[in-house]
Amino acid sequence: MGVQIESRSEVDPAPRGLARLVDPGSIAIIGASDRPGSLGRRTVENLLDHSDFGGDCFLISRSGAQIAGRAAYPSILDVPSAPDVAMLVVPATATLTTLRDCAARGVRYAMVFTSGFGEVSDDGRHIEAEMARIARDSGMRIYGPNSPGLCNQNRRIGMLFSPAWQTDQRTGPIGIVTHGGGVGRAFMQASDRGVGVGLYASTGNEVDITAADFIRHMADADDISVIAASLEGIKDGGELAAAALYAAECGKPVVALKVGRSEAGARAASSHTGSISGAAEVNSAAFREVGVVEVDTLDELIDTAALFARKRPTGREKIAVYSVSGSVCVMAADALADAGLELARFGDATRRQLSEQLPSYAAIDNPVDLTSDVMADPQLSYDSLKTVAADPDVGAVLYPFPCDWGGISGQIAEATVAAQRETDVPVLPIWLSDRLGEGWTTLVDGGMTPMRTIRQASQATKRWVERGRWAVPKDWQPLPTGPARRDPVPREALSEAEAKALLRAAGIAVPEGRVATSAQEAVAIADALGYPVVAKVASRAITHKSDIGGVAVNLTDPHGVAAAFARITAAAMRHAPHVPVDGVLIEQMKVVEHGTEVFVGVHRDAIFGPVMTFGLGGVFIELFKDVARRMLPLTPASARALLAEPRCAAILQGARGAPAADLEALERLLLAVSDFVCARGDEVEELELNPVLVGRAGAGLVALDAVLVKRSRDGEN
Amino acid sequence: MGVQIESRSEVDPAPRGLARLVDPGSIAIIGASDRPGSLGRRTVENLLDHSDFGGDCFLISRSGAQIAGRAAYPSILDVPSAPDVAMLVVPATATLTTLRDCAARGVRYAMVFTSGFGEVSDDGRHIEAEMARIARDSGMRIYGPNSPGLCNQNRRIGMLFSPAWQTDQRTGPIGIVTHGGGVGRAFMQASDRGVGVGLYASTGNEVDITAADFIRHMADADDISVIAASLEGIKDGGELAAAALYAAECGKPVVALKVGRSEAGARAASSHTGSISGAAEVNSAAFREVGVVEVDTLDELIDTAALFARKRPTGREKIAVYSVSGSVCVMAADALADAGLELARFGDATRRQLSEQLPSYAAIDNPVDLTSDVMADPQLSYDSLKTVAADPDVGAVLYPFPCDWGGISGQIAEATVAAQRETDVPVLPIWLSDRLGEGWTTLVDGGMTPMRTIRQASQATKRWVERGRWAVPKDWQPLPTGPARRDPVPREALSEAEAKALLRAAGIAVPEGRVATSAQEAVAIADALGYPVVAKVASRAITHKSDIGGVAVNLTDPHGVAAAFARITAAAMRHAPHVPVDGVLIEQMKVVEHGTEVFVGVHRDAIFGPVMTFGLGGVFIELFKDVARRMLPLTPASARALLAEPRCAAILQGARGAPAADLEALERLLLAVSDFVCARGDEVEELELNPVLVGRAGAGLVALDAVLVKRSRDGEN
Repeated sequence: MGVQIESRSEVDPAPRGLARLVDPGSIAIIGASDRPGSLGRRTVENLLDHSDFGGDCFLISRSGAQIAGRAAYPSILDVPSAPDVAMLVVPATATLTTLRDCAARGVRYAMVFTSGFGEVSDDGRHIEAEMARIARDSGMRIYGPNSPGLCNQNRRIGMLFSPAWQTDQRTGPIGIVTHGGGVGRAFMQASDRGVGVGLYASTGNEVDITAADFIRHMADADDISVIAASLEGIKDGGELAAAALYAAECGKPVVALKVGRSEAGARAASSHTGSISGAAEVNSAAFREVGVVEVDTLDELIDTAALFARKRPTGREKIAVYSVSGSVCVMAADALADAGLELARFGDATRRQLSEQLPSYAAIDNPVDLTSDVMADPQLSYDSLKTVAADPDVGAVLYPFPCDWGGISGQIAEATVAAQRETDVPVLPIWLSDRLGEGWTTLVDGGMTPMRTIRQASQATKRWVERGRWAVPKDWQPLPTGPARRDPVPREALSEAEAKALLRAAGIAVPEGRVATSAQEAVAIADALGYPVVAKVASRAITHKSDIGGVAVNLTDPHGVAAAFARITAAAMRHAPHVPVDGVLIEQMKVVEHGTEVFVGVHRDAIFGPVMTFGLGGVFIELFKDVARRMLPLTPASARALLAEPRCAAILQGARGAPAADLEALERLLLAVSDFVCARGDEVEELELNPVLVGRAGAGLVALDAVLVKRSRDGEN
Repeated sequence: MGVQIESRSEVDPAPRGLARLVDPGSIAIIGASDRPGSLGRRTVENLLDHSDFGGDCFLISRSGAQIAGRAAYPSILDVPSAPDVAMLVVPATATLTTLRDCAARGVRYAMVFTSGFGEVSDDGRHIEAEMARIARDSGMRIYGPNSPGLCNQNRRIGMLFSPAWQTDQRTGPIGIVTHGGGVGRAFMQASDRGVGVGLYASTGNEVDITAADFIRHMADADDISVIAASLEGIKDGGELAAAALYAAECGKPVVALKVGRSEAGARAASSHTGSISGAAEVNSAAFREVGVVEVDTLDELIDTAALFARKRPTGREKIAVYSVSGSVCVMAADALADAGLELARFGDATRRQLSEQLPSYAAIDNPVDLTSDVMADPQLSYDSLKTVAADPDVGAVLYPFPCDWGGISGQIAEATVAAQRETDVPVLPIWLSDRLGEGWTTLVDGGMTPMRTIRQASQATKRWVERGRWAVPKDWQPLPTGPARRDPVPREALSEAEAKALLRAAGIAVPEGRVATSAQEAVAIADALGYPVVAKVASRAITHKSDIGGVAVNLTDPHGVAAAFARITAAAMRHAPHVPVDGVLIEQMKVVEHGTEVFVGVHRDAIFGPVMTFGLGGVFIELFKDVARRMLPLTPASARALLAEPRCAAILQGARGAPAADLEALERLLLAVSDFVCARGDEVEELELNPVLVGRAGAGLVALDAVLVKRSRDGEN
């Protein structure tokens, strides 16, 4: 521990980027070993035997003078020049010391394979905090710990211990970044069906370098055109969102699988917004907003990324289905319908050509059922597939191969590959059988990256087409959120009257009203407001007011108001005797004629910060969860998109001949709420207007109830 | 055509069952050929070279005296004895003649491979009708046309032309019946991952023998324990439902994929019930009701059937997740949560054992993350897997293998197979990689039928567990429906007043009321009923009454009633001058206090006959489609189950402290509606009560509006 850490300014200044990490000039392996089966040995073999690494490689081993037939150094401090990368294959207990030594020796990037830190215990988390400090203080960047390493396929450099890597020989345009090595390795092995990966990183516990850093790196990298990510614990939602948006601006689609959707979000929630907004829903909304193509499964991740690598979508693609089996055609049409994709309508020329090319009992409309006659004449497949792909309405061809017919399937596959060479409309073969014969191999070798199920193919196509419709949002950047919250923050709820006063001051329409502390005052307020009025208990401590008898509506005269005051204060005393009550809020019973009840809420997500939820209000909120979400701040465009997204939008827009609601007033409300929250920094934890009664176009709206929960500063330093 | 058809009574009486079809004593191939690549030759080769068929085989060829080195007969009429089965590999134009010859010669079962009939044209449908007549008149049963044949794997008899069959050598307990050969062949090739099929039939256009016949056959067959079906055009819904129920009674689960869900149901619909009930929804409801396990994809069909073949579920299974990769564990937990399955809770003994067996940083709770240490010590996997499977709360173990590590994966797979031998809790390996190495082969050879994706495995497990909870319904049989309707029937709508009169007579609560033909009469009726009343235009021809101004509510005095009468009749004259109007229906405005609006409808499905739809009423019906369905007739048990199924059931049962609705009255209503429809045979096409206002428990309900559409007998013979 006596080693002095040189600050980065004293050594060669390292770039913040990762170019020298993924393509280093020199590498050290600390913990290199000759012991069979050890991680140290596999790491050495992967770099020396299975890579084309031409730079310096320093092996460091406390025990041996010779490793893999080379002289080894006892310590990283002894190497003759500062390596770009040091891989640490050392015991957990030696990690901090070794990292300090690396920093002292001027290592640019330290990769820590070792496990047993933050993923296991609080002690581990403290050690990780120390690693982060070393990185911050020294400028040396740290990758890991608990990482399987990384491999640069396109340069054939493997900095990792996996015994599987030596067989992963394919290169390609896809960059992968994962939390978790198993997922990434499975993706790599999709090379066996022709999926080409150029760079694969698995960032482990991310004390310093994060998945977001790799997304930015890949966005800039010339040899990567599609970014695939499997994300488990996102360290900084704002950073990730910004990186994804940067990739989109660079023209690189990001396809991502969020792992850990089922984790129970142990969050405090005083509102519907909080209780119906799980981490998974917010994650999906955030991804969508920054153009990340979210997928549901590992296979979809692979298939979708591979499809983007084949062609960029326009968003207008309609699909042709083409197969030798009628029932498989129908299955594909089912799956496309489920995915919300549209079947192409063939033009007359296409139909005429098909009817010349195919047997009389083949289906010459879309889907095209070739019939099993193709078995006797694979030329049928070549001719008709070309015809289909040439139809002007066809943007992609789904081509399920139901089973393996040995050599016959090989010939059909050859015809498919040949037809694909003559069109840039992607033909997507789907190999349904578990028998991988000649046909399969021909498709793989022909660069057609066959998919394995109809559902996955149609889901991948859906993601692809939908991303084609997305555009980088104008004049918008996600808020910086800082590190993801691990622990709940102290909170305090305002009373409804307090909340409404703040909202009213911000230009948000709430009913006129004031808090009365006596029956007499209540009547005076009601007289001033005009009848009818509503009375509600005013207390920060009572959130479910009606449950305790704390609400009276439609009070039409002074007598009713006075009686309500007495009833409500008595009910509050009875149900919550030790709770401070400010009085009774007397409000205009402002009824918007023909109003529709909607719901507007904001809550602060642990990862992505403040998120707005909008949707159908009233009794069915939790039953139907008919809502949509957007990250704050809203722009006019994102507010309009948010309004149009829930299913109840049809009602608001005037379904079935009914008049439309006041969508302009709603849009103004959403923007005002966004401004209200954003103007207050990290103060607002939850804000919910429910119900908001929206009148017909031009009639305005009013937020009848409001919940506002602030972050409490009491006791914070 | 001069051949006289012998009626079945004159020849050897054939059993109605299919035992001699799938295991015949003698077979004729009509259209046998030596021409390379021809269907005739492949059929001969499949039977003579690739089967173990010991019975007589007669080859019939008009052209050749010798086929495959055997003497051929010029006609089926020339064979020395009547074969059990004749396979027809003849041109479409020769099919009818050949079938008549077969019947004349006393063939028991004729299989028609030929295509180009009902699936292509109306002419083809007429020929099929003639085939059906031949079967009916002669007693000879016909399989096909447009069928690829069938194969009895367990007896090794192939009566089919597929070039792929010769490589399908595995036997097994699964019976498959499909519409469409591609799907079945793909299923057969799942033998490459160890899935064992005993019998596979693909019934083609089903002029006589149907999928339902095969389900009954397999239900009785000793060598089949699970039935898998891929169904496209169901010929007779009632027959299929009854066959499935019979299989369930025999203890044989039926797993089915409905192909063609996206087909547009071109149906007349005068009600919500009709417009929100697509063929797919009704199909799913019918399947569920008779215990058919519906799956969404071909892979789920295979995986689910294979799982049933491994073990029968109890319905109480909770699941353990077990993997060498933490992120893959989380993906599996996500998928199980999506599938609504429960993770097992390990007992203390299990946790203690695991903490002894696994490295300190492994996750010893469910999911179990073995960590990559297992690479160095496969024994870890054997020990801990046994421990997990032995936990009393574990009903199945999902075990995803993220990637192939060559020999190491082989050793881990061996440990898995060995552990499975010592427990009857199914261990379900999932091989995520496209690289199929030693580990894969070991799992397949060990009988573990590895699945290919986590989602499919969890979906299969979900279907399996859910079927374990299902019981054969007591005292219930599906209605006989007859052949599926191809064409719409003539329909006539009753007026609301007529419909309500019929319903009232059947004991269904509707508001009191009568039709008035003058303002004076309207007032007299209102006086008699008591105020307030409702007035509605009474006409069979006006279904959307409010749209034309034909409804007035809350009329509190005679003056209001008279004015409403005038307004409504004028509106009807203005909007529909040429339409017969009976008058104006004056009804008690019977308001059930605190009522919830629900929706009860019946429509006649083209395949499954009358189906009831129940769910949330009001403005959001079409938006949320929060409904459930049951085939008629309802039993008290199925009525209760129907009431409990939609999401709005939570509201009716009294969610969030609200009082429960009158569920008993609702149950009585559902049964009364079922009786009403069933008592009228096929007369009722659509019946809809919407809204039905349901009061609190004991307060009853009332059907505020009613639509009734009858089948019109005018012009029918």
